[in-house]
Amino acid sequence: MPDIESFKKQALDELIELLKIPSISTLPEHEPDMRKAADTVEAALLRAGMTRTEQIHRANHPLVYGEWLGASGKPTLLLYGHYDVQPADPLDEWKSPPFEPEIRDNNIYARGATDDKGQTWILVKAVEWLMKRDGKLPINIKFLIEGEEECGGEAIEAYVAEKPAQLAADAAIICDSEMFAPGLPSICIGLRGIVYGELHVEAARQDLHSGVYGGAAPNPIMAIAEILTALKDKDGHILIPGFYDRVVKPAPAEAEAWASLPFDEKEYLEKEIGATAITGEPGFSVFDKTWARPTFEVHGIRGGFVGEGAKTVIPARAVAKISMRLVADQRPDEAISQLKSAIAAVTPKGVKAEYKFLHGAGPSLVNPDNKFIHESALAMEEVFGKKTVYIRSGGSIPIVGLFDTHLGIPSVLMGFGLPDDNLHSPNEKFHVPNFYNGIDAVIRYLERLGA
Amino acid sequence: MPDIESFKKQALDELIELLKIPSISTLPEHEPDMRKAADTVEAALLRAGMTRTEQIHRANHPLVYGEWLGASGKPTLLLYGHYDVQPADPLDEWKSPPFEPEIRDNNIYARGATDDKGQTWILVKAVEWLMKRDGKLPINIKFLIEGEEECGGEAIEAYVAEKPAQLAADAAIICDSEMFAPGLPSICIGLRGIVYGELHVEAARQDLHSGVYGGAAPNPIMAIAEILTALKDKDGHILIPGFYDRVVKPAPAEAEAWASLPFDEKEYLEKEIGATAITGEPGFSVFDKTWARPTFEVHGIRGGFVGEGAKTVIPARAVAKISMRLVADQRPDEAISQLKSAIAAVTPKGVKAEYKFLHGAGPSLVNPDNKFIHESALAMEEVFGKKTVYIRSGGSIPIVGLFDTHLGIPSVLMGFGLPDDNLHSPNEKFHVPNFYNGIDAVIRYLERLGA
Repeated sequence: MPDIESFKKQALDELIELLKIPSISTLPEHEPDMRKAADTVEAALLRAGMTRTEQIHRANHPLVYGEWLGASGKPTLLLYGHYDVQPADPLDEWKSPPFEPEIRDNNIYARGATDDKGQTWILVKAVEWLMKRDGKLPINIKFLIEGEEECGGEAIEAYVAEKPAQLAADAAIICDSEMFAPGLPSICIGLRGIVYGELHVEAARQDLHSGVYGGAAPNPIMAIAEILTALKDKDGHILIPGFYDRVVKPAPAEAEAWASLPFDEKEYLEKEIGATAITGEPGFSVFDKTWARPTFEVHGIRGGFVGEGAKTVIPARAVAKISMRLVADQRPDEAISQLKSAIAAVTPKGVKAEYKFLHGAGPSLVNPDNKFIHESALAMEEVFGKKTVYIRSGGSIPIVGLFDTHLGIPSVLMGFGLPDDNLHSPNEKFHVPNFYNGIDAVIRYLERLGA
Repeated sequence: MPDIESFKKQALDELIELLKIPSISTLPEHEPDMRKAADTVEAALLRAGMTRTEQIHRANHPLVYGEWLGASGKPTLLLYGHYDVQPADPLDEWKSPPFEPEIRDNNIYARGATDDKGQTWILVKAVEWLMKRDGKLPINIKFLIEGEEECGGEAIEAYVAEKPAQLAADAAIICDSEMFAPGLPSICIGLRGIVYGELHVEAARQDLHSGVYGGAAPNPIMAIAEILTALKDKDGHILIPGFYDRVVKPAPAEAEAWASLPFDEKEYLEKEIGATAITGEPGFSVFDKTWARPTFEVHGIRGGFVGEGAKTVIPARAVAKISMRLVADQRPDEAISQLKSAIAAVTPKGVKAEYKFLHGAGPSLVNPDNKFIHESALAMEEVFGKKTVYIRSGGSIPIVGLFDTHLGIPSVLMGFGLPDDNLHSPNEKFHVPNFYNGIDAVIRYLERLGA
């Protein structure tokens, strides 16, 4: 039996191997990597002492399930993570290649380091340590590790809806969020939902010469620009009719707690964003804008000529990737239909516009007054030596809504990422001390729940 | 000596070989194809009886020059064409591959068929026929065939400015435009200029997670959309201050002639454009919009995620390819500075925008009252059996302005393309009878000038 420090170092070595697998769920050519990553996770669950593991196939990429149910009379916790990662482009902005993990300045750099392989590994390794040390676990454990978090989560959505009895638990722990600041233990109690889709605009039958037809022919990229600017004004206010109707303001106590969080707007702008100004709706704080207000964003426009040099073409069609982040109590289905109506109302003359929904998830807001969240807060306070703060995240973890709807359980979002971890960006990293402290905190959490 | 019909069929076979060369001047990987195409053209000029040929290197791709100056006391004509072609994408919209010429329904389909290899070949083959038939030419001939028409024309611009004596001529003939309608001989007396460049917008230092930062971070694609819509309104009116100040209205006689051209707006919309409506400035005819009014177009936007599926990224930067078509008496330099000022004035908060000029050319408007245009009109009337009409083109042929400025000569734009030739688009074609009649018309033109 190694000591805990050696054990954690070995856990890091194993994480490095997992990070080498380019398990990009959204790109079909990485299918073999997805299988390899799923196998690696399943093997790790077996090593952690799970008495039964299984790869569940429902959509594109397998769910990895593992259980140990030997703590009779104790609570059952569902442990969630994901082994898939975001695409790594633009590749030329990485200082070290995204799938060749490198440790620099006590950070491990790789795609998926923080989102979510590193954090998934915290859960797996905390359980493995307890099992190795005690030969048993203090509570019952069910792991559910998915491979489609970055591409819509179709498999887990189907499985959770289909097998609530199999997944029955008292609470879920999700390790896929971040601490508010280095060293400050944080539990995320609110997440934005998302509706992601494509805006397809068709103008002419085929690409046209911009000299011969320019002035008389519709331009689909210009049409997209007109639609986008008609849906969101320069101040970041979304103009989709009815869109804000269900938006709930943060409770006064929550808003007050946010105001006392350590936050330097100048540093946020300069170090995290690196733009010339913070933008968005006037009169709202950064916390409001990113945690409590919905968004409308464009992620890319395909169509037309983007190579080197000049091509004088009016493209026949163009596609914009667009998303809306939703907050409580907005509903994805309603937002989609509001968006579709708004697009129809502002589509300019000469073109046809069609919205194609790709994936969505509702927002979530957890009431922090329950034992699973309290014990988590106390476990982190023990390890980090600071009072745990309740925060929200602007991102979307669709599984929280699924667990609530189908299993009727609260989710505890214990996150160990840091705000500058560059998730979804080049040079994604995970702070190694947070990896180690995360393992300690989850060990203490499971111990406390079993006490 | 073959008869003229056999000669023209053989000319078509040779054209097919030329069309097989993917001489895309704008893409560096086609450099060897550019050299091969230049060599093919030079060899054809030698076969046509030129006593001296030369490949001139000034910028990226060689100019091919050839001369026969044996008609003492007769006029000298400068014959212009280009051997480079536009990129062929989107490839999947071609019915036959762009560089595997195929004849269907009396049309030859290939990239460059009409723009401009087919039309260049008309000039070369008309000269070759006269030389073969008579052992001499009725007038003096200088060929100048460039390889950078689709990528800015840097080489020819330098050479014409540098060697006006070498290129001295009485007029130029440019075979790179279209007939107004099938069977209707046309001379183009007006061309729009162009200013083509890139709008670079930089927002954050690197790509950001749209969940974590969405609502507070600037989005460069949205910024481009805001800039584009601030520079052109929904009616197609360009909002760049001062932009229309120098725009000259067509003379009443010209406007009247346009009104009597055979033109069916419904057919134009349905067969040529294939969109749901003609767009552009209210109160202007299609001829006004495409011949006599300037444009502002976006050709593509690079930046962000455009692959399959979803990536929730706010890109750090984005680039739009944009152009302005200019009409007499607008000036490229002035338009560029107006555009730059306008961009600076409308750039939204949080981002930096920079305009990078790529290439430009002034507009041109030729006075049709001169012998070189008259004889061309009469030669075409002989061959096509219909009165020649004077039209304009919305496209840009920068060389017309260069010949005017540096050589002081008028350009005769005898075009044999057709409006549905799909130039710059998939399924570009050239009508084979126009190729044959074009050779006949140029033969008659040279004979008339020498008479």
